[in-house]
Amino acid sequence: MSSWIDLPAGTGFGLANLPLGVFSPDRPGDAYMCSEQRGRRTGVAIGDHVIDLAGLTGDQVHATGSLNAFLARGPEAWAELRRRLTGWLVDPAHRAAVEPHLRPRDAVTMHLPVEVGDYVDFYSSQHHAENLGRMFRPGQPALTPNWKHLPIGYHGRSGTVRVSGTPVRRPLGQQKDAAFGPSRRLDIEAEVGFVVGVPSALGEPVPVAGFAEHVFGVCLVNDWSARDIQAWEYVPLGPFLGKSFLTSVSPWVVPLAALEHARIAPPPRDTPVLPYLGDEGERWGLDLTLEVRLNGELLSSPPAGLLYWTAAQQLAHMTVNGASLRTGDLFASGTVSGPDRDQRGSLIELSWNGAEPIKLADGSTRTFLEDGDVVTITASAPGPDGERISFGEVTGRVEPAS
Amino acid sequence: MSSWIDLPAGTGFGLANLPLGVFSPDRPGDAYMCSEQRGRRTGVAIGDHVIDLAGLTGDQVHATGSLNAFLARGPEAWAELRRRLTGWLVDPAHRAAVEPHLRPRDAVTMHLPVEVGDYVDFYSSQHHAENLGRMFRPGQPALTPNWKHLPIGYHGRSGTVRVSGTPVRRPLGQQKDAAFGPSRRLDIEAEVGFVVGVPSALGEPVPVAGFAEHVFGVCLVNDWSARDIQAWEYVPLGPFLGKSFLTSVSPWVVPLAALEHARIAPPPRDTPVLPYLGDEGERWGLDLTLEVRLNGELLSSPPAGLLYWTAAQQLAHMTVNGASLRTGDLFASGTVSGPDRDQRGSLIELSWNGAEPIKLADGSTRTFLEDGDVVTITASAPGPDGERISFGEVTGRVEPAS
Repeated sequence: MSSWIDLPAGTGFGLANLPLGVFSPDRPGDAYMCSEQRGRRTGVAIGDHVIDLAGLTGDQVHATGSLNAFLARGPEAWAELRRRLTGWLVDPAHRAAVEPHLRPRDAVTMHLPVEVGDYVDFYSSQHHAENLGRMFRPGQPALTPNWKHLPIGYHGRSGTVRVSGTPVRRPLGQQKDAAFGPSRRLDIEAEVGFVVGVPSALGEPVPVAGFAEHVFGVCLVNDWSARDIQAWEYVPLGPFLGKSFLTSVSPWVVPLAALEHARIAPPPRDTPVLPYLGDEGERWGLDLTLEVRLNGELLSSPPAGLLYWTAAQQLAHMTVNGASLRTGDLFASGTVSGPDRDQRGSLIELSWNGAEPIKLADGSTRTFLEDGDVVTITASAPGPDGERISFGEVTGRVEPAS
Repeated sequence: MSSWIDLPAGTGFGLANLPLGVFSPDRPGDAYMCSEQRGRRTGVAIGDHVIDLAGLTGDQVHATGSLNAFLARGPEAWAELRRRLTGWLVDPAHRAAVEPHLRPRDAVTMHLPVEVGDYVDFYSSQHHAENLGRMFRPGQPALTPNWKHLPIGYHGRSGTVRVSGTPVRRPLGQQKDAAFGPSRRLDIEAEVGFVVGVPSALGEPVPVAGFAEHVFGVCLVNDWSARDIQAWEYVPLGPFLGKSFLTSVSPWVVPLAALEHARIAPPPRDTPVLPYLGDEGERWGLDLTLEVRLNGELLSSPPAGLLYWTAAQQLAHMTVNGASLRTGDLFASGTVSGPDRDQRGSLIELSWNGAEPIKLADGSTRTFLEDGDVVTITASAPGPDGERISFGEVTGRVEPAS
């Protein structure tokens, strides 16, 4: 298939992707725009452009300022929109109707794509969990006894999930022995996030096989972490202020429908799982390689395909106790790390808790983030016919503590 | 002051209380009601009645189905409504105007009062924390080293916060060594909850002195807990499925303005606190005694006035890292327990982890909850002139696992 739109060579936003996001036009002076058109609306990324779905379809669900109302319509509506978009973009007969609703991607402002319900962060990379275990519990088994039986997770702060580009204010907080001040161990966590579209009822678990009936798509997540604040606070009830100051997400949500070619079997599991976590025939490993850059320099390439627990298993676990889902719920993989040093998705792993500073191209070193540092996470996955599916980026610049 | 409304002797819903909630009329057959009137609207409890604020004031903010939009207006609007309500209820000249908007409290259905943003649960009762420490870490200090330096807390699942009366379906889940089945250690946690009205900006901590500028009022919380699920999952990231199946709240939110006579100094602190947690002159201890009943029988009377950390300190801590607040955020004290056995706010404490079964009046015993059990938590606080301020109740009946 090809499109009448000019698609730059190697664009990750081709006909096989069609991710959804929320944008507002950056040209308030444009004479033809009424005030409503200046508001936040749903867009589709195609090549270097954004399609204004509210304008093109006339469906006000795309002018609500978040994807929630559309995502709540469910998989048939998602598939129908995808079919229509493909038709509009392939058949030149639609060009005249579509073109007025195209905007250059570099001339719009992207917003948080969903109004987030609950935000859950998992801990599903075996290499990440083992690295942290070795650092903090030397001489003991690297994994806790529960790790291979269930996808460990916890609730994060949904109110501080923000879109890529939001400044990262270095947090203040209590540290070891009640010292107080700006975090000196500010870190990243490179993760993959999953966006729930269809809610579920209280008391009704969602099985592994129900994953694609509830989850619309995938984004990138940077779960900024203040390791010194977290270390002091987290026993016995888990991370709190060490995480809650900011979680950044990429603006484009890639539909599961775009990831059929990226599905792979997760790594072999050496410990049998309970039936509710069984995923034979429902394998949602994703061949998705992240790239983490610090001030433009590639630090690591964490492989999400190596995650021990898949998102479908995470969803089944999260609801097995009867917990309900809401449209806009976001759950993330936890830091993605692979077995090699250049596959680690956090600075605490890359610098081995500060003991092995990271050497940068300019001769400087890093253990944790310094003010002014910019961290950008990108990713792509295989699509059909050699096409790549881009996830765009999630980025943030560290600002000094206030 | 007295009202032209008949206020039953000893009502906790007198002129000094005026709590807000969301109700829907239970009489859809009433000929005079249009469909809009049958919807969820904001009410004020007064004696045995509810005032329909949407009908009385004509302000559509009270017909939105949650308190959020009104609470977002802030303390001046809250105070103004309170002044107007007092005037209407005291001066008989208003009787004819108000009476058409009164409904018997026992003839309406109460709903979740707010659309919950983030839900945070603290751990602020020293007696509760020490009891759990003695049970689970015998031979070690009962409190973790951080406990007297900060109010320990964690994020819970806001999507499963439901109104009093919601059935408590016994959760299924993984337990020790990956056993799977219905929880056999289903418990309660009797808590006090605080409802945020006015949001705050990312990066701007709310000081202890800002408490009443952001928090509208107080409700009762039962944070149902599956101890066996929790015990297996919670290392290292804290409670997750052991809590997320349901959290129940009382339907009436008592304004802070009704609690001036209930304010007391919190217990003396033997460990100095950091300046951001200092509460000299901003003491928000609340002389609020909870009562926990199992199938009607009084089990305990947990004293919220003995909480080591106040809600104002909890709020300051929760935001010191720059985390923002949203309207509808709910944060709770954690289980309230006092030094005496009959002041313990959970069954795990009352039965000492099952070792000392609770003897009930009918001759039966309990360690944890059985199917069919009904748990009801009530509370009241001192008001002016000997009046009591009631918090109503939060109740739930345990249903068998599905």
